[in-house]
Amino acid sequence: MSSPRNIRLLLAYDGTDFNGWQIQKKGRTVQGVIEEALTRIHKHSTGIIGAGRTDSGVHARGQVANFYSTIPSIPASKYADALNSLLPGDVRVLGSEEAGEKFHSRYDAVERTYRYHILLSREVLPWQRNYCLHLMREINLKILMQMADCLKGAHDFTAFSATDVDRKSSTRHIKESLFYIDGDYLVYHIKGNAFLWKMVRTIIGTLLELERDGGGPEEVMKILASKDRDAAGATAPPRGLFLHRIEYGNADGK
Amino acid sequence: MSSPRNIRLLLAYDGTDFNGWQIQKKGRTVQGVIEEALTRIHKHSTGIIGAGRTDSGVHARGQVANFYSTIPSIPASKYADALNSLLPGDVRVLGSEEAGEKFHSRYDAVERTYRYHILLSREVLPWQRNYCLHLMREINLKILMQMADCLKGAHDFTAFSATDVDRKSSTRHIKESLFYIDGDYLVYHIKGNAFLWKMVRTIIGTLLELERDGGGPEEVMKILASKDRDAAGATAPPRGLFLHRIEYGNADGK
Repeated sequence: MSSPRNIRLLLAYDGTDFNGWQIQKKGRTVQGVIEEALTRIHKHSTGIIGAGRTDSGVHARGQVANFYSTIPSIPASKYADALNSLLPGDVRVLGSEEAGEKFHSRYDAVERTYRYHILLSREVLPWQRNYCLHLMREINLKILMQMADCLKGAHDFTAFSATDVDRKSSTRHIKESLFYIDGDYLVYHIKGNAFLWKMVRTIIGTLLELERDGGGPEEVMKILASKDRDAAGATAPPRGLFLHRIEYGNADGK
Repeated sequence: MSSPRNIRLLLAYDGTDFNGWQIQKKGRTVQGVIEEALTRIHKHSTGIIGAGRTDSGVHARGQVANFYSTIPSIPASKYADALNSLLPGDVRVLGSEEAGEKFHSRYDAVERTYRYHILLSREVLPWQRNYCLHLMREINLKILMQMADCLKGAHDFTAFSATDVDRKSSTRHIKESLFYIDGDYLVYHIKGNAFLWKMVRTIIGTLLELERDGGGPEEVMKILASKDRDAAGATAPPRGLFLHRIEYGNADGK
């Protein structure tokens, strides 16, 4: 018998009706519905590893996951169609391919990109309501850009995260951090090696509060230095957040 | 006691979870949830008239409706907020204002605009799935534009509509009929004095079939002339259709 192939999936999902990525005792999860579909295909219980454990209500445009296939007759590229025919409409497999035997979607990821959507129009239309934070005021894009920019580099992000007992280090390396305008939306784009729990949402909540109250880069640096969650602002709602992309180095095993 | 004020509403809704606009014996309808909210505000049963009776799954960006207010203490402009606080998230009141005593949102409408969204990208992302038809092939925009253009003017649209026993005339006056590209979408825009039942969806289904099969304006004119529904193509799915705008002449009573 040939050894099981390691299959890598590219996934998009609408987080609205999910209790996040990770399987839990109760509630519908993305990992749960995908494992259920895989188990139906394989006719035995099949687990899956996801690169990013998105929270309840958070969406994904480019989540990556991997699992081991024990059915040699299914070409790796056909898993996308096979899964899509079994999955609910709020999860889609955008692609499937064979990865190296040791490829691990979470441990091997070297860059993660998130985007946060802020709607600046007068009203939220019904089909926008689950995918953005609505901001009803004028914003100072220049100040927001300056504050976003000073998060680049290596920082201890303790002040910008929820408590996580499992955490070894709170230092993260941020490569890109910027705001841009896309139609009616103000979008925050952040790329880093990894993120602390609720980190992007706390950054957004804090930068928007600082901008509203006349703060700037200096206040952002002070909050970073404090390592005190209470020094930062509120956590922005999950519905505006999208896991946009995961990048791998040579470690993707191909 | 002062006579009841006639209040005009501008509405947007996500038709996905509605059995259309019009109240029915069974199922959730847009008219139903709005009348329920109004009845809670007025503390007596209050009916509402809508300009367009959209079908199940069809969305609205600019539906217009009117009702009579018997509570003089509520300013007309405040009905929007009052209703939004009671309505579910898939219906939003974008504005409310006092109209002339005799204003009738359906009978007084002089122009109606619908838009149909066709997604041309390789995949439908989960948050696009309820709002478009997905087309996986190259399209000939020039031919589509020519076919759309020949629908302008006054025509008997019997061939492009579902049977409706209540209908007096099947002639409709089309002012604008065109396709345009908006990002990943091909959008069909049509404006006319009124529309037959399922007319826009049958036009879309037919034009896309003709374009795929090498047809053109000549075939469109033949189908119109046949007055035979069987001569036209399939009815496109409701999820791509948006009631975009309703226009009134001097008859809006202001």
